[in-house]
Amino acid sequence: MIEPPVVILDRSQLAENIGAAARVMANFGLERLRLVAPLKGWPQERAWATASGADWILEGVEVFDTVAEAVADLNVVFATTARPRETRQPVRTPREAAKVLFEEASRGLKTGLLFGGERTGLETPDVALCQGIVTIPIDRRHHSLNLAQAVSINAYEWRTTLQDAPPPAFRDADPPARGELIIGMFEHLEKELDEAGFFFPPEKRPSMVRNLRVMLGRSQMSEQEVATFRGVIHALSKGRGQRLQKLLEKRGEPSEG
Amino acid sequence: MIEPPVVILDRSQLAENIGAAARVMANFGLERLRLVAPLKGWPQERAWATASGADWILEGVEVFDTVAEAVADLNVVFATTARPRETRQPVRTPREAAKVLFEEASRGLKTGLLFGGERTGLETPDVALCQGIVTIPIDRRHHSLNLAQAVSINAYEWRTTLQDAPPPAFRDADPPARGELIIGMFEHLEKELDEAGFFFPPEKRPSMVRNLRVMLGRSQMSEQEVATFRGVIHALSKGRGQRLQKLLEKRGEPSEG
Repeated sequence: MIEPPVVILDRSQLAENIGAAARVMANFGLERLRLVAPLKGWPQERAWATASGADWILEGVEVFDTVAEAVADLNVVFATTARPRETRQPVRTPREAAKVLFEEASRGLKTGLLFGGERTGLETPDVALCQGIVTIPIDRRHHSLNLAQAVSINAYEWRTTLQDAPPPAFRDADPPARGELIIGMFEHLEKELDEAGFFFPPEKRPSMVRNLRVMLGRSQMSEQEVATFRGVIHALSKGRGQRLQKLLEKRGEPSEG
Repeated sequence: MIEPPVVILDRSQLAENIGAAARVMANFGLERLRLVAPLKGWPQERAWATASGADWILEGVEVFDTVAEAVADLNVVFATTARPRETRQPVRTPREAAKVLFEEASRGLKTGLLFGGERTGLETPDVALCQGIVTIPIDRRHHSLNLAQAVSINAYEWRTTLQDAPPPAFRDADPPARGELIIGMFEHLEKELDEAGFFFPPEKRPSMVRNLRVMLGRSQMSEQEVATFRGVIHALSKGRGQRLQKLLEKRGEPSEG
């Protein structure tokens, strides 16, 4: 079992953000939350409101006085900060950082992610306690990122690093129908279109047929969908005729067209 | 200049979330926000508080009554939903989706990301109007993701794709038609099928319509192909009628069916 990074919030200000951070931690499978000198104390009721059910994380919160104490038992901690630092520490994107944390955690090391307060950010001496810096690629024109969003991006990258298997191309995938069924459907459509005088001028029929087949072929219909579409072709070709018939029967006279 | 995806929030409930969504959009360089039937109307003051300075996005908000109208001018829209759907639409991770949206946007197409309301989520018929589904990899034990967080993850992936994307592969295919053309084609087909008595039993009509739209939507028809397919619908629905008419005219008597 690979242990996810501990999330450490330094001097966070708003209970709402602590709760929202817990919520996204739960969303992405992170478990342990540590608070360093929360400005309004701990626990705070309003955190439970925004945690929206991630209570076990809030109830497991550990509180520390200093960053040094909060990282004491951890092997590899990255500080999340947008501000350039004098410290000659490696700066990584959340994706690069997640890969490193994953490798370290796979070796059985204890990892962590440190986040600064909403107003205050991180003190450089606390950043210096970390083994690296994570900087989220933010648009320069609007670089104030919400604390829970910063936790979210990093938690998401941890999660995706953990399980890089993309989802299946289709949910509940009915497999695409066999070629013969698709071709039978094409021929059905083309026969009806011939009778309807659709392919005109005649010399254009081959290219028109080809374009129709390509267009419909792209949707990779399942066997069921082929049956449905043949029902559509049938209904459309019969429909008008039946309506005209009813009309004529009502009028009881031949159509003059 | 590559145009970022339009963000569309369907029936969002909380002004705070709309503001928070605008804030992360600004963080990651997205510009255009559309609201479909915001449950508490628009504008709402509290959105400006959580937008934390991303005012130009809130001031540029466009409001629509339906998802169909909100996607009418867009070529490629992905619906963000965690709920498994019966629809056979491609399901992508935010990372895969961002790559596709980037490629389409690089071709000058208009792209969008559709998000459901906090409580309500997305209606399957609206999902069926989209060209694909985006599912964020969430821990099963806690899958309720905050709306602004969902926007954030996708906006972040757009941003990172933008940064480390190689110049997209050249594609000379005709671009997918705008949503309004696709929807117009759907409605044309459904009208003819109604007249042909195809949708039976009536209570099944909504799901039958949805499956047809998904099936045909997957082929991402170009404007030319939409015109061709409308010609097909027209030819099929008229064809039989004309043939019957000719027959009747020749026989000079009303049909007994």
